[in-house]
Parts: sequence; structure tokens; C-alpha cells
Amino acid sequence: MHTLYSMQDSGNCYKLRLVMARLGIPFRIEETDILKGESRTPEFLAVNPNGKVPTLVLDDGRAITESNAAMWYLADGTQLLPDDAYDRAQVLQWMFFEQYSHEPYIAVARFWLKVIPGGREQKTGDQIAEWHSRGYAALDVMERHLDRADYFSGRACSIADVALYAYTHMASDGEFELSGYPAIGAWLDRVAAQPGHVGMGWRPAG
Amino acid sequence: MHTLYSMQDSGNCYKLRLVMARLGIPFRIEETDILKGESRTPEFLAVNPNGKVPTLVLDDGRAITESNAAMWYLADGTQLLPDDAYDRAQVLQWMFFEQYSHEPYIAVARFWLKVIPGGREQKTGDQIAEWHSRGYAALDVMERHLDRADYFSGRACSIADVALYAYTHMASDGEFELSGYPAIGAWLDRVAAQPGHVGMGWRPAG
Repeated sequence: MHTLYSMQDSGNCYKLRLVMARLGIPFRIEETDILKGESRTPEFLAVNPNGKVPTLVLDDGRAITESNAAMWYLADGTQLLPDDAYDRAQVLQWMFFEQYSHEPYIAVARFWLKVIPGGREQKTGDQIAEWHSRGYAALDVMERHLDRADYFSGRACSIADVALYAYTHMASDGEFELSGYPAIGAWLDRVAAQPGHVGMGWRPAG
Repeated sequence: MHTLYSMQDSGNCYKLRLVMARLGIPFRIEETDILKGESRTPEFLAVNPNGKVPTLVLDDGRAITESNAAMWYLADGTQLLPDDAYDRAQVLQWMFFEQYSHEPYIAVARFWLKVIPGGREQKTGDQIAEWHSRGYAALDVMERHLDRADYFSGRACSIADVALYAYTHMASDGEFELSGYPAIGAWLDRVAAQPGHVGMGWRPAG
């Protein structure tokens, strides 16, 4: 059985919980609280030298880090990853967009303004304004795409949608206002209505 | 023939020039100077709404953005992308590492300290110090991996190596000092010795 080193409150970890729930892949969780330094212990760094969760350890002991890379490994050959070469490139395109142009602003704003106690006081107004400016720019790009497509690649919900859903669906935690983004709102509802969908709080039994 | 919207001085664009050179894929270049706003014109935004280069337009007119996604499309089925599922996940892992933990510091330092005229004066000492701190942390992770492996995934040079080579080989432009990284130095030489390798200045004839 796979082991997921995961922090329950992390959207990047949620991506992998959601994909494994949707695909019916059994796994166990090793809860890893980055706020307590648990991703920086010698034991953890032996598993992932980059010191980050999520880290997926396969049943044969090999590890995969980076949430979107681990999603690709789990989803290849399933309905969450299309077969067509161009559609697959589009999945990657939107997952790289997520990690470069979306997560560093929308997830990071949530982390400092909501997750970490006293986080707001450690950041300047300029930093918070930059997260919002760049985060809204990413939401603008998404809205423009979703105005003419139901999903980010091909005709079905894929891991590109999961990647972008994770932090978009809780963007308000980072003080983003989504009411001006009706196409994003409808897409969030479509993703949450997929069979096997689970929320942030879910974890596997046992 | 594919068209690459490219800025010659961009490492992300260089990745695609290098991959197509190595694979013998013919293409034409549409030089796009982001410093002159050429990636923000209505014509360009119609091709890539995210307003960034590189953008690869296939011979059938469909576009792929995000350098690492476009490299995957071009390299799948070639010696630059392994067949094994775990090795492919490792390629993605290191490409996401590159875009999240490496490029935002090592490429961004180069951009402001070397590429953009008067860039240094627009940034604070704290910002420059943070690029260096996080950039060296990324180099530390790479050095640890390359201490025990010749390449980033599997036994051969892949697009993961190309992704990390692009900005690492000119890290000194961002005032990073690589003399303390012997494994990275040897790996840079291995990548540059691959058949068909071309440097930053290369462009296709015609």
C-alpha cells in the first residue's frame, strides 16, 4: 500500500488524497506537520531531500515528490489523464501554470493570512498586495479559459482540474473574492460533483 | 513546421531550442522581445492568454505554453524521455522542482541583475538576498542528487536535465558561485557533451 506523507491542511497534499480517493487507490497517511518542523528531520530528509510534503512513497519503497508529478504517476492510464498527446501536453501546461503562476500567490496568501498563526504580522502590505495582484491575474487566465471550455484539457475532468481546484476552491482563505469569476464558480461546482470527490477534511479509513 | 515564439536571451526559450536541435525537429523562430512588451500585444495574447514566451505553435496551429510542457510533447517517444512509469514521474518531479524551487530564484536573479537594464536598482537588498538563499538551497538539492547519479532521471540525459541545465549553466549571471558544487559542474559538462547539443546563441538556419 502507498504511504502519503501529508499535512491535512495543505492543498498540495489534498490533491493526492483526492486523486487516490477518486481512483479507489488504497493508501495510508503519515501526518507530517511542517509547522512543527516534521519535514526537516533527518528521517524525513532521507525520504525527500527537498524537505516538503506531499511525498508519496510507493509500496516498493520508492518515493515521488512534487504533487503534480505524483498525480501524473497515479493517474496515467485512468480517466483522470487523457490519452491524446496534445491533451496530455495541455494537462502539463496547466499544471505548470498552477505551480508557477497560481500556487505561489493564491496558496501562499492562504498560508500566511490563514494557516500560520501570526503570519500576517510577518509580511508587509506590499507583499500581500503582490500576492493579490498576481493571484487575480492567474484567476483572470483561468476565467478566460473556462468561459469557453468545461475543463482545462480535453472534455473531461483531469488532474489539471484537480491541481487548480485544490487552492482555487479555498482562495477566500487568502482573501481572494471569487464573485467576479462566474466561469470559475461553475467549474468548481463541476469538479466537486465528480463521482468519488472528497473534501479537504477527508482521510482514508484505518 | 512548428513556430517557436522565443526570446533569444531567455533560458526557458533556450530549453525548447535545445530540445528541437537535439532531436532534429525543424522549426522557425518568431523573435518576441518581452522587454518591449511584445508578449502583451492583442495578437500575442490571442496565442497565449498568459502573455509569456516560450509559446510553441504546432504546424496544425495549436499552441502549447509552459516550456516544460512543450518539451514533454516534443520528447515523448524519443531518447530524451524514458519509457518507464517511475522514471517518467522522476522527470516530472525534477521539472516541477525546477519551476517552483529553482527558476524563481536563479533565473529571476539573472533577469534583474543581468538582463534588464537598470534592474538591480529596482530591487532591494533583501530581495536579492532571498533569491540567493533560495537559489543556493535548490543547488544544494541538485548537488546531493548528482553526487550519486549522472542524470536526474534514469540512466540517460532527459528533458529533466535540459530543464535544469538551462538556467544552472548561466547561474553566474545572477551572481551565483558554482565552484562549491563539483557534482553540478561535472553534470553541466556531461549535458553539454551530448550529441546535437547547442548553446544559448544558436538558432535554426533560414
